[in-house]
Amino acid sequence: MKNVLLLIVLFLLAGFVEAEELVSPNGMQKLQFEVVDGKPVYQLYYKGKAVIAASSLGLDLKDEADLLNGFEIEKTEQSTFDESWKPVWGEVSEIRNHYNELAVTLRQTETDRLMVVRFRLFDDGLGFRYEFPEQPNLIYFVIKEEKTQFAMTGNHTAWWIPGDYDTQEYSYTKSKLSEIRGLMQQAVTPNASQTPSSPTGVQTALMLKTDDGIYINLHEAALINYACMHLDLDDQNMIFTTHLTPDSRGDKGYMQAPCTSPWRTIIVSDKAGDILLSHITLNLNEPCKIEDTSWIKPMKYIGVWWEMITGKSSWAYADLPSVQLGVTDYSKVSPNGKHAANTAHVKEYIDFAALHGFDGVLVEGWNEGWEDWFGKSKDYVFDFVTPYPDFDLEEIRDYANAKGVQMIMHHETSGSVRNYERHMDQAYQFMVDHGYPAVKSGYVGDIIPRGETHYSQYIVNHYQYAIEKAADYKVMVNAHEAVRPTGICRTWPNLIGNESARGTEYEAFGGNTPDHTTILPFTRQIGGPMDYTPGIFEQDVSKYNPDNNSWVNSTIARQLALYVTMYSPLQMAADLPETYNKYLDAFQFIKDVPVDWDDSKVLEAEPGDFITYARKEKGTDNWFVGRTNDEEARTSSISLDFLPEGAEYVATIYADRKDAHYRNNPKAYQINRYVVTSKTRLDLFCAPGGGYAISLIKADAATDLKGIRKR
Amino acid sequence: MKNVLLLIVLFLLAGFVEAEELVSPNGMQKLQFEVVDGKPVYQLYYKGKAVIAASSLGLDLKDEADLLNGFEIEKTEQSTFDESWKPVWGEVSEIRNHYNELAVTLRQTETDRLMVVRFRLFDDGLGFRYEFPEQPNLIYFVIKEEKTQFAMTGNHTAWWIPGDYDTQEYSYTKSKLSEIRGLMQQAVTPNASQTPSSPTGVQTALMLKTDDGIYINLHEAALINYACMHLDLDDQNMIFTTHLTPDSRGDKGYMQAPCTSPWRTIIVSDKAGDILLSHITLNLNEPCKIEDTSWIKPMKYIGVWWEMITGKSSWAYADLPSVQLGVTDYSKVSPNGKHAANTAHVKEYIDFAALHGFDGVLVEGWNEGWEDWFGKSKDYVFDFVTPYPDFDLEEIRDYANAKGVQMIMHHETSGSVRNYERHMDQAYQFMVDHGYPAVKSGYVGDIIPRGETHYSQYIVNHYQYAIEKAADYKVMVNAHEAVRPTGICRTWPNLIGNESARGTEYEAFGGNTPDHTTILPFTRQIGGPMDYTPGIFEQDVSKYNPDNNSWVNSTIARQLALYVTMYSPLQMAADLPETYNKYLDAFQFIKDVPVDWDDSKVLEAEPGDFITYARKEKGTDNWFVGRTNDEEARTSSISLDFLPEGAEYVATIYADRKDAHYRNNPKAYQINRYVVTSKTRLDLFCAPGGGYAISLIKADAATDLKGIRKR
Repeated sequence: MKNVLLLIVLFLLAGFVEAEELVSPNGMQKLQFEVVDGKPVYQLYYKGKAVIAASSLGLDLKDEADLLNGFEIEKTEQSTFDESWKPVWGEVSEIRNHYNELAVTLRQTETDRLMVVRFRLFDDGLGFRYEFPEQPNLIYFVIKEEKTQFAMTGNHTAWWIPGDYDTQEYSYTKSKLSEIRGLMQQAVTPNASQTPSSPTGVQTALMLKTDDGIYINLHEAALINYACMHLDLDDQNMIFTTHLTPDSRGDKGYMQAPCTSPWRTIIVSDKAGDILLSHITLNLNEPCKIEDTSWIKPMKYIGVWWEMITGKSSWAYADLPSVQLGVTDYSKVSPNGKHAANTAHVKEYIDFAALHGFDGVLVEGWNEGWEDWFGKSKDYVFDFVTPYPDFDLEEIRDYANAKGVQMIMHHETSGSVRNYERHMDQAYQFMVDHGYPAVKSGYVGDIIPRGETHYSQYIVNHYQYAIEKAADYKVMVNAHEAVRPTGICRTWPNLIGNESARGTEYEAFGGNTPDHTTILPFTRQIGGPMDYTPGIFEQDVSKYNPDNNSWVNSTIARQLALYVTMYSPLQMAADLPETYNKYLDAFQFIKDVPVDWDDSKVLEAEPGDFITYARKEKGTDNWFVGRTNDEEARTSSISLDFLPEGAEYVATIYADRKDAHYRNNPKAYQINRYVVTSKTRLDLFCAPGGGYAISLIKADAATDLKGIRKR
Repeated sequence: MKNVLLLIVLFLLAGFVEAEELVSPNGMQKLQFEVVDGKPVYQLYYKGKAVIAASSLGLDLKDEADLLNGFEIEKTEQSTFDESWKPVWGEVSEIRNHYNELAVTLRQTETDRLMVVRFRLFDDGLGFRYEFPEQPNLIYFVIKEEKTQFAMTGNHTAWWIPGDYDTQEYSYTKSKLSEIRGLMQQAVTPNASQTPSSPTGVQTALMLKTDDGIYINLHEAALINYACMHLDLDDQNMIFTTHLTPDSRGDKGYMQAPCTSPWRTIIVSDKAGDILLSHITLNLNEPCKIEDTSWIKPMKYIGVWWEMITGKSSWAYADLPSVQLGVTDYSKVSPNGKHAANTAHVKEYIDFAALHGFDGVLVEGWNEGWEDWFGKSKDYVFDFVTPYPDFDLEEIRDYANAKGVQMIMHHETSGSVRNYERHMDQAYQFMVDHGYPAVKSGYVGDIIPRGETHYSQYIVNHYQYAIEKAADYKVMVNAHEAVRPTGICRTWPNLIGNESARGTEYEAFGGNTPDHTTILPFTRQIGGPMDYTPGIFEQDVSKYNPDNNSWVNSTIARQLALYVTMYSPLQMAADLPETYNKYLDAFQFIKDVPVDWDDSKVLEAEPGDFITYARKEKGTDNWFVGRTNDEEARTSSISLDFLPEGAEYVATIYADRKDAHYRNNPKAYQINRYVVTSKTRLDLFCAPGGGYAISLIKADAATDLKGIRKR
């Protein structure tokens, strides 16, 4: 009898704690999943130590029973996946997608509803998502809040920006998790459109480092038809919980089964570089949906832009307090004399682009409506097809064509999303008709429909609509102020960029922190490339506009490095041609650096301090190295052992001079050439807010190496 | 000195009370306008007596000083206008637009802002609106609430429906103004989408009658890019104040000067018929903006509709809990066997239409998505172009074409407005490609973007967008559940109808009150025609669907009358062909009655009791008379003196029999023919919920009058 009772007890215990385990292909990562008192709970281990403590899963629903507890495991399925795929463009030419998968089907017994949690465990981290299969008792449901936890194992260091429904354009704060609450107020700096989410809310990708030196990165992949995720910290227990972006009524997602949530990703490594090089985000996205991708091409461009950002020139043609499209007769209006997007000036840019081998010229301020576009909550703000009187579209198109340069379109929506959608087909067709292969879109200001925010499900749906419709027109999209990317460029490679973070423009709005670009690749760029628009050689903005005394907190050498460290298939040389003309020797690096790669390596990396990348140009043997450095003077020590053995390369090193400083002496750069090999080691001085860039061009029989020192 | 002081005092007094007067062309109406203590105030007199007591004007603005007081009169301008114009279709073939106008420019001294109030005084009433000229100190502004007053001169009788941001589908309540508050709760009957606005809020057009027998009607004209107006009653002081429909955040209008508000209209007469015949609403709208209107044609139609409304058939093809457009494979789905919009059945309707001379056939439920279209807040709910497997679009198009019948499209949006706009161009082009000249659109259910309502500025803007884009495609629009019309069909005559009130469908949802159609022309139809879809001959809905015991509260004779009394260029014979086939003699009237008129007269009218119209067919000498009667048995006494003198007409009178009753004996009709002239007087019995219809066909030399009694 006692034995029977014991067996019964053991059986019941087993019934209460049902644990599943999943291990990554190389065994370094381990996932544990169990249902504890009816609640689904997961835990992640790296090299035997917990990196995510016991964390619960589920969703809080509106007007019906929650999907938080009362679960049993209905079934589990384990599988392995191992395939490689080639991105249309990228940091590497081939990506291996190798994971072990655990799909747990949970049944909530009281309501007879099913929820699946699918885990994919890679060598460098975990991805998981919720799935809601087709089923009778759960069809249409509204999410009140997703309640996914990421329980921290300690008071880690974090590089964070405040959770916000409308902007990511904040500087990063580095602090302990416990300090987030106290530092939140000062972290919320002013923005054209902002809605801070909560006292301890942060955005993703969130970069963390434990006291033991383990790097952990939290983000999401494949954000489609769902609200953007933020993380709220319970700073008593050090547990992050998902906080979705609400719609205008506070609801967090309208769902129809069968459907899935985005993937929640946890990248883990004891090497910071592994975080940067992780392909988890892309691998969790669906394969490319575009059949013919031949029209999708990375581009290097210049543009009529920085002169307006600094205030030297004007987007607007005239200085009118307001305009009405289709009513205001611009031919009768007095131009303000500062309108940069005029035919003659644009031709100068086209000339410069042609002379220096740039693919494209972006022009902002080309179209009617800029006089009152900002801050007015104006519905019919732009029509995206009507140029100003001084912008001769056809002439410019033909001129660019004759010079072998393409024009990049600009669609500033001013957040007036319905207006953009109403005009989108005509706007894209207009691009096709005038030979514009790519468009930079913008969402500056509060969203219309009013009450929605930049990152709600409703507006996330819009960005996707714009990307997919662009693909129909064979148009590439670079969306600024949109939701930060989550790897969707794998599925829709015509999404060649986003800004969706604090970019170079802020150098003219008061400056970025000198370490800003040592953080962005760990945060913003986990989900996709960033159109950071670097290449500013003139740090003193007052030189362009006496009324603007902002300072670009970067040496010239570091600006060059950004073309390597800030990966993007779309790279802008953002400064003015007249400034580049003064530093053509430094500018040479920008001309040489490619925008598409076969391979990428991280030579040095510490978030907030420095990053050094080496990248191999697609289709050649050439390599490019870039180092971005924070506010401390440092020495970078790198080995060129990524070069093929036995080959000689001409290294042109663009570096800070010893006296360089981002504020005091930013233009102090030096250019040195050496013959190097895979055995070469380099120790290079990096100024505060500095860095270096190196082009490594393979020497062949024809290369004249005379007079170049070996190193 | 005393004289000087007196002069000064008088001068100052004159400065404080600046009164302007305006009189209508025939002198019957008089407007007084003054600025009293800085507040603009107007008053309206009819035949020497006040009909609107002193009422203030202005707007409450958000985040800036209100436009309510602190005004001075900057200038006034009086003018006269007298032109006639011809509507593309209408109740009359020519309309005289004759008014005296007073435009008062007010300056708010403290803020130096200008506001114009423009008054147009017609012989039958007043229209006025706010105008905000281009000016430096008022450009972009947000309305918190419009504060236009309509001060009642007594506790009038009103025929009202509750103010509501989402629906007008309420039965009218007749009560004293003082009783509105107490009757509000029971007046708010259930609806698919409703948001009652306030405890004493009512919609417009509001019909009123004073104890002295003066009829007053309040409405608005030219509701474009503004929020729909309701009226809140201060039932202590008997003052109505405008209450605009809010957006998702509670704001009431985003404005950019120069701009105007819609016209607020006050129609006044001691004859009820004058209210019905007033052209103020149309006259205050802009002239027709469509150059070539040859494609705009009134239509008489039948449709696959009532059988679904009653529940006999199904809009949906299958009985699935949910579908996903483009994913659900309908070819693999089991049809539910009740889907009415199938090729064979539609051809039967086409046959019937061709046989009986109907212009068009409407088909609802033809397209994928009806399985889960309602009540799910489903975003991508319809695509407007994909037919069900059993609806062969091409075959039906060709069949209809061969039979000389046109197909009427159906775009049910389910309130998912962004989705409709995304598909609109393709949907309209699809109509053009398949020969559909007109579309019935619907907005059943809560609006997406969620938080907006059917009558907010944002959504009013959408309806206008749909109308104007339809004109580009030469498509006529009949928008159900849209905002109630305000005369915009003068400017955009392709807007051939709206439902936007409680229509015939409610006869199958529990029944309409027997007097409903004796009120609608005084309320709903002040702003434009209504697609009331009459012609129901079978009152017992359970005959179609045993599970639906609703009753159509109308005799057959009254159903015929509605084709005359419910003016619309679009008229449906809504019942099933198989039912009409049983009463072809009565059905003859529907076949004969035209849908476009040269002239219209009101022979008898009392809101809530009865209305008798006589209308002259466009382009012929024929006349048609219709009488709709309330729940009381009455005798209608009319003179045919509208007929031309000396001419003989064959009158076919379709009337209630003496024992008819909308509930007990609705099918008891009689048809009698007489030869009549302009000297004829008729006394006709009208049953409870009954009425009569008369066709008056001019006899010519060929007409055989033998055997027809003279009367």
